[in-house]
Amino acid sequence: MKAYLITIGDEILIGQIIDTNSAWMGQQLNLNGMQVAGITTAPDEEQGIRAALQEGLSKADAVLITGGLGPTKDDVTKKVLAGFTGGRLLFHEETYRSITRFFEQLGRKPTEAHRLQAYMPDNAQLLRNRMGTAPGMWFEHGGKVLVSMPGVPYEMKSLMKEEVLPRLKAQFPLRAIAHRTLLTSGTGESRIAERIADLEDTLPPHIKLAYLPNLGQVRLRLSGEGADLASLEQEVDSWAKRFRERLVDIVFGEGADRLQAAVGRLLQERGLFLATAESCTGGYVGHLITSVPGSSAYYTGGAVVYSNELKQKLLGVSPQTLSQHGAVSEEVVREMVAGTIEHIGGQVAIAISGIAGPGGGTPDKPVGTIWLAVGNRQVTEALLLRAGKDREKNIQYTGAHALHLLRQFLLRHYPQ
Amino acid sequence: MKAYLITIGDEILIGQIIDTNSAWMGQQLNLNGMQVAGITTAPDEEQGIRAALQEGLSKADAVLITGGLGPTKDDVTKKVLAGFTGGRLLFHEETYRSITRFFEQLGRKPTEAHRLQAYMPDNAQLLRNRMGTAPGMWFEHGGKVLVSMPGVPYEMKSLMKEEVLPRLKAQFPLRAIAHRTLLTSGTGESRIAERIADLEDTLPPHIKLAYLPNLGQVRLRLSGEGADLASLEQEVDSWAKRFRERLVDIVFGEGADRLQAAVGRLLQERGLFLATAESCTGGYVGHLITSVPGSSAYYTGGAVVYSNELKQKLLGVSPQTLSQHGAVSEEVVREMVAGTIEHIGGQVAIAISGIAGPGGGTPDKPVGTIWLAVGNRQVTEALLLRAGKDREKNIQYTGAHALHLLRQFLLRHYPQ
Repeated sequence: MKAYLITIGDEILIGQIIDTNSAWMGQQLNLNGMQVAGITTAPDEEQGIRAALQEGLSKADAVLITGGLGPTKDDVTKKVLAGFTGGRLLFHEETYRSITRFFEQLGRKPTEAHRLQAYMPDNAQLLRNRMGTAPGMWFEHGGKVLVSMPGVPYEMKSLMKEEVLPRLKAQFPLRAIAHRTLLTSGTGESRIAERIADLEDTLPPHIKLAYLPNLGQVRLRLSGEGADLASLEQEVDSWAKRFRERLVDIVFGEGADRLQAAVGRLLQERGLFLATAESCTGGYVGHLITSVPGSSAYYTGGAVVYSNELKQKLLGVSPQTLSQHGAVSEEVVREMVAGTIEHIGGQVAIAISGIAGPGGGTPDKPVGTIWLAVGNRQVTEALLLRAGKDREKNIQYTGAHALHLLRQFLLRHYPQ
Repeated sequence: MKAYLITIGDEILIGQIIDTNSAWMGQQLNLNGMQVAGITTAPDEEQGIRAALQEGLSKADAVLITGGLGPTKDDVTKKVLAGFTGGRLLFHEETYRSITRFFEQLGRKPTEAHRLQAYMPDNAQLLRNRMGTAPGMWFEHGGKVLVSMPGVPYEMKSLMKEEVLPRLKAQFPLRAIAHRTLLTSGTGESRIAERIADLEDTLPPHIKLAYLPNLGQVRLRLSGEGADLASLEQEVDSWAKRFRERLVDIVFGEGADRLQAAVGRLLQERGLFLATAESCTGGYVGHLITSVPGSSAYYTGGAVVYSNELKQKLLGVSPQTLSQHGAVSEEVVREMVAGTIEHIGGQVAIAISGIAGPGGGTPDKPVGTIWLAVGNRQVTEALLLRAGKDREKNIQYTGAHALHLLRQFLLRHYPQ
């Protein structure tokens, strides 16, 4: 069974918002054994939407549409869908009641624009939207299915999980498809390819390997297709195991795992608390760590010491070290680690000081010069990163490396 | 002149990475008066790529392709492009030298996979890639243009700016198109629509208004099309001015501005320094603020006080207040503001304490209960947010609201 994804919105074509819905939908469809034949973005006007619908129906069994259902005037989707499938828009009492109820719960009254939202195609099955006011719509059309959902990500996700995926699974017989993804940090794509070249060459044709690099991490995805799901999964699993054994030093997890979660598990298993001291990353590493639910079990907190005064005041970094070596130096990040354990708490600390850019560089220490340190009361290890010129990318790259460094430190100094 | 964007990669179809390139390319093309007719994602295999190329050429004058040029084995793009345009792959000495040089600079040797990267279609003009090893390719095909670029965002961006956009502008005559975007915070889409309904109804047909809501902010985009660029821009500008005047209390900026930058300008103009105290947001607000270049001119730093001990130790929050009202309370965030100004520094402070979820909720204080406070030495204002159940979204939503609250505080208490 093949699906085709259409995102409607001029705001995507002109680049004002990024289409994150398609990625999430692609993941969910794949997990459920459905293949995505294509993804396309159509403008907010009739002709473009019709062309995308034609294209989707020529390539797939189900066309899933997001966007173009909001309460404001830039939306034409519903009219086009009704016309395309031979229906017409009628005022739908139940939808209007549900809109009214939704606003009553918020202590507000619906507007006239919300009233217009209650006009629905008379040939669509309406799908209940638990997270917002616009219901989903399910059309049967020439043996195929058209589904329309709001573009707001959490509304779309709720509709997909509760309504759309169960209906698709009931309507279409599925092919067997299996994925496994190994997550690595700290080694580049080409070096990894060299280390596994011989294994890769012996992969059977129905199992493919893809390299997905991103900011200091590379994901290795094995995808298999076959007749029988159970035996296919076993086969892909056994290949994943072989690749993982080969790359045991750099694989930190699988699937949708994240390095910050992997590091969190290491800390928690060892009964350690972490504290952070960030200068140029401004809180980003704390944010990464605390984006993991339950991180309070191993994260004390930290200091964002953006100014030199604060490095002294909160962490006790010595003014001599700062003036002699500069804030971006190995000596300062080492003192920051010691000061963090002393004044903030925790058994293990990360410290970061660098020049994120675009300003602040010198010939000696150009933009992208970043010192990292990870340590405990006994030992501190420091690392000099030479990142690029882009502030945002430097911050992200530094965050990923800080977590990588922390993981290596924990594995070396706290072996299980 | 119309462009069509193709992203190549199974990893996008199965949702393992999000296509951010297309959004950036759409922005740049629009800024240069070129329209994006569609965006599509094709799988890593010949048939799918060929179909996307056909589709693109039927809809646009230039087809811009990203992805499928890396050094590993999952790439077929180059072969398909050569075949499609009637060329063949030949070893390209100069490209190989540039790859070798690139690795020499890193103190490493190219691998065999990198050598394969030096095979290039003999009918393509090669575009210099300053940020990586894979050059871009420019094909002329039946009066139209096909361009292939690597998928790594900073390589693609560099190629677009330095090579592709200048060539496209030289080759195609441009239509006049003008955009203006007003950025608002703190008010929902429907309420904004009500406040500007009469203005919106008098917009001429060649100027459109779109509402782009996202996590507590709504962008209002005016797009005009016309014959003469100068008069069109003047017309769109004058409409933007009318909408901005109507919404003066909630518009914080225009275009690609960000709330954290707008707040930064207010602080800097007033000679104020900000400090932050974050519990449930774990450093995210500090990260937002320091994502703006030059933020050290108005941001001192802050404390990530994830544990209750740290709220006492770093900020002097009283143990009585914590035990009497709980860490997530108006009383605690008020003491956090006072303690931040006292112990961290700055004239203005933000404090945040809440339950980001998914765990940690109680009947009294369910997940999504978040207290915010902004204050100076004289006055502190607190706000209770009732966010949702999703941790990541709660953190982002809280960050956006904290900045909104700070902006309102600055405008009220430090009028220019």
